[in-house]
Amino acid sequence: MNRQWVLAQRPVGLPRHIDFAKREVPVPTIKDGEVLVKILYAMMDPAIRNFLNAAGSYMTPLPLGSPIVGVVLGRVEQTASPALQVGMIVSGFGSWSDYVAAPAGNFSRVPDDLGSRLEDYTHPLGTIGATAHHGLLSVGNLAAGESVLVSGCAGAVGSLVGQIAKLKGAARVVGIAGGPEKCRRACESYGYDECIDYKETRDLSAAIRKALPQGANVYFENVGGAMLQAALDNITKNARIVVCGLIAAYNAVEPLAGPTNLWNLVVNTAQIRAFRVADILPQHAYLRTIHSEIATWIKGGRLVYKVDVRDGFDAIPDSFGCLFSGAHDGRLVVKIND
Amino acid sequence: MNRQWVLAQRPVGLPRHIDFAKREVPVPTIKDGEVLVKILYAMMDPAIRNFLNAAGSYMTPLPLGSPIVGVVLGRVEQTASPALQVGMIVSGFGSWSDYVAAPAGNFSRVPDDLGSRLEDYTHPLGTIGATAHHGLLSVGNLAAGESVLVSGCAGAVGSLVGQIAKLKGAARVVGIAGGPEKCRRACESYGYDECIDYKETRDLSAAIRKALPQGANVYFENVGGAMLQAALDNITKNARIVVCGLIAAYNAVEPLAGPTNLWNLVVNTAQIRAFRVADILPQHAYLRTIHSEIATWIKGGRLVYKVDVRDGFDAIPDSFGCLFSGAHDGRLVVKIND
Repeated sequence: MNRQWVLAQRPVGLPRHIDFAKREVPVPTIKDGEVLVKILYAMMDPAIRNFLNAAGSYMTPLPLGSPIVGVVLGRVEQTASPALQVGMIVSGFGSWSDYVAAPAGNFSRVPDDLGSRLEDYTHPLGTIGATAHHGLLSVGNLAAGESVLVSGCAGAVGSLVGQIAKLKGAARVVGIAGGPEKCRRACESYGYDECIDYKETRDLSAAIRKALPQGANVYFENVGGAMLQAALDNITKNARIVVCGLIAAYNAVEPLAGPTNLWNLVVNTAQIRAFRVADILPQHAYLRTIHSEIATWIKGGRLVYKVDVRDGFDAIPDSFGCLFSGAHDGRLVVKIND
Repeated sequence: MNRQWVLAQRPVGLPRHIDFAKREVPVPTIKDGEVLVKILYAMMDPAIRNFLNAAGSYMTPLPLGSPIVGVVLGRVEQTASPALQVGMIVSGFGSWSDYVAAPAGNFSRVPDDLGSRLEDYTHPLGTIGATAHHGLLSVGNLAAGESVLVSGCAGAVGSLVGQIAKLKGAARVVGIAGGPEKCRRACESYGYDECIDYKETRDLSAAIRKALPQGANVYFENVGGAMLQAALDNITKNARIVVCGLIAAYNAVEPLAGPTNLWNLVVNTAQIRAFRVADILPQHAYLRTIHSEIATWIKGGRLVYKVDVRDGFDAIPDSFGCLFSGAHDGRLVVKIND
């Protein structure tokens, strides 16, 4: 049988266990060109939260009763495509299920010749690593000697962004996180020169100014809301604000207030550049370049990261909830099958 | 003597005559490397309004009692620089005065070999033309076949953006303006396929969706506020939002609400790109390319534009106020001297 977590009702605010329902359906059969993938790890990504909301004007919402979609790591069990063979470890968009049947092109083989552990493919060698690397270097166009500001800096993506910035010669890297423990980790492990604890800061804009008197050349945005407003007060001429995520908005019941200081963009001839890692996943050669460089850093012991593995299919809804309460440490994934 | 309009008090909301004071001072003397320019036309640009406010965290405000700064067109009366000769017509940043003394590099000679009238150098062959051309084509990177949305479309910049978009092969060009008269001009004269009268529109987002069902590839922003919010609901994948001005914010007493739908940037992997024409004014070769192309359009009768000339130094404060009330038609300038 094939277990699935489906959307029982649309969450209001933070997602709760009751918003999801478990069901069992037959294992899907594959058609020509498709593969059957047994899912080993389901990734807990904040962006999933967006798909659970009712229709906005701009995004197709997940229908009630549908399996929750997200990035997965799995093993090919059956194949009707020359592109992928049985036994290969692949990653791609799947769902919170034991099995998924989909066109082979939806999945890419993980580069196991990089010699890394399976868990690494859920984090630095998976979509998180690609998000941090692509976002900071290609979208943000970071140059050596520049300064970087990162919100959500102790999260999975943020923890890599700080280190990659340093590895690429950033002059100063400042993070924003919630709580002393996250700030400690950011500075001790994730390459940050300084971390602002926004929960203990009354005037975030002033705190950033103190930490980065010259402003940020690149602001890597994972959060939005008040963080974006404060960051906009502290950008350099020709700054790039890279929007990776806006987690502050995902669980908001009312629309979050937008930044009132967009004029700073004009004053500094700055740009806001949003991206989605999903768009680069089909660019296999580019992705390979990114992951090869990250693998080199891993082998050289130059990259610190942590995968927080929760065990078992039934742990998915509560694990997803943890993502927003901050009760996790590192990249949060659920191991579904061996 | 040298007449000047200086900042008497900081305007609250719309600028009023009483915010400015007239004074007479001696004609300045020039130092080595400088020129004395007799100002013929003072340009009424909305951006001047920003410099009249008290200090924000990001911009040096104009001190009380200082001459109001802005773009001017003038004639070199004295020179202590080999770069500019007496009698040349030049443009650059000056002030609301009869005379200004400044380094020759602050001014550039207008390309009078383009064979245009003096007034043209206040509009399509001046900063307005450069703003529209550079913003739409270089910053916005418009490609033939794309769709364009423009706020403030009947204003000086907007009136050129619509026409340049069409001249460059845009598939559909939609404008937003206030009132039936401006909308009529936009469609009849300025190249717009359709113009939305925001004063008569309850749901601006829905109105844009109706006019541009596929969304805008380029949104040229002159206004901000509710316009930006509505435009963000209607962008295509990889859209470019070019921020030229945010006139809605200039006279606001309270900070204007920011857009609550920035998530649309992520969904569409879109960018907000702000620019200032001041940054390209020193790039003489590039500016020359822009103005040469515009001159070709003018000579070919392919560009419609109107200069609204107000007469006399004393007309400056009220003319500047007109800029925000909409009681003008075309590029608003004040003729100070012959």
